[in-house]
Amino acid sequence: MARVSQAHLDARRRQILDAAALCFARNGFHATSMQDVLKEADLSAGAVYRYFSGKEELIAAIVSEVLGEVHAAFEVAADQSPPPPPDHVVALVLSRTLGLRANLTLDGLPAFPRLVVQVWSEIPRNEELAAVLREGYGNVRGAWGRIVEVYQETGRMRSDIPPDHVARMMVAAVLGFIAQQALFGPAPVEVLRDGLRGLMSMTDAEPKA
Amino acid sequence: MARVSQAHLDARRRQILDAAALCFARNGFHATSMQDVLKEADLSAGAVYRYFSGKEELIAAIVSEVLGEVHAAFEVAADQSPPPPPDHVVALVLSRTLGLRANLTLDGLPAFPRLVVQVWSEIPRNEELAAVLREGYGNVRGAWGRIVEVYQETGRMRSDIPPDHVARMMVAAVLGFIAQQALFGPAPVEVLRDGLRGLMSMTDAEPKA
Repeated sequence: MARVSQAHLDARRRQILDAAALCFARNGFHATSMQDVLKEADLSAGAVYRYFSGKEELIAAIVSEVLGEVHAAFEVAADQSPPPPPDHVVALVLSRTLGLRANLTLDGLPAFPRLVVQVWSEIPRNEELAAVLREGYGNVRGAWGRIVEVYQETGRMRSDIPPDHVARMMVAAVLGFIAQQALFGPAPVEVLRDGLRGLMSMTDAEPKA
Repeated sequence: MARVSQAHLDARRRQILDAAALCFARNGFHATSMQDVLKEADLSAGAVYRYFSGKEELIAAIVSEVLGEVHAAFEVAADQSPPPPPDHVVALVLSRTLGLRANLTLDGLPAFPRLVVQVWSEIPRNEELAAVLREGYGNVRGAWGRIVEVYQETGRMRSDIPPDHVARMMVAAVLGFIAQQALFGPAPVEVLRDGLRGLMSMTDAEPKA
């Protein structure tokens, strides 16, 4: 009985989070009311408020969950020795993250990229959310930095560039790829992976200025 | 006299656009009223409405102007023969674009990255804005594609990857770098440039799957 009950609680929580994610992706955080979330989840106010006190708690839960998944996917990549090349790491982490949200769609298109952009736009107004994102971003940037250090120590990448600069560039490419999808529709992860491969094959990098 | 008058009109228009850009970057498009813009510009309603009919026209003018500047900066890079390597192109275009908006600040930080993220978040609600952005993005993606073709034709980059995939990756890196600044504060263009250089120096790209 207890197990069924916990499974039920978890499913209900999932139902609420997915409904909120869809609402935020569709209209943004500002223009979404708790009424919209109740309607999307097809649940009563009592059923929803048992889990979340309001929009702030919902957005924080959604963002924390996604960042946790990204971090877990990174651990899988970073645990490999030697670490896979950057194009592989990006393809692995991004396809896992996008895959976990593939069921969330708006007008037949993935909702996740639109959710991400809406969350970003909320940051100036929401210091708590900004703090959660800064920490998650710091974790990913740190993990990338450690992978880059191994590339450099093992002679796979020139060592005269701060690992953190490469880490920021890799995070930028992934964030920008997600933003592109929000703006212009979905694209397979292979597009980004192949683009990175092309760049990795360039022969004429200049010395560091 | 006529010249002074035109200069005055231009300066007034600039004053309004910069005020609107600051308001949108601070609070987003949705939560900004024309009253906010008038106050920020320190102008009367009559003075502002002579130039712009409302928020929609303001945001369209701001976005068109920025995209025009990006395109012009790209022409400078693409006109060079042979084209400079990707890290140079990015540094040139991005530093020009950010430099033109360096006077716009919020709490002492550059407002431009925050403006960009706010514009993105408005796209699902504003088909006209989406169309302007799609066209501007298409131009930049096309320009990058042509530069990549030259890299490939001249043996500087492996030629088994669609130029458009590299183009999308490069645009993603720049968009993501701008988003990072909106989220976590300013970073010099050299961070992205050096990160790209690091990636360009990787030795172990795998064959295309």
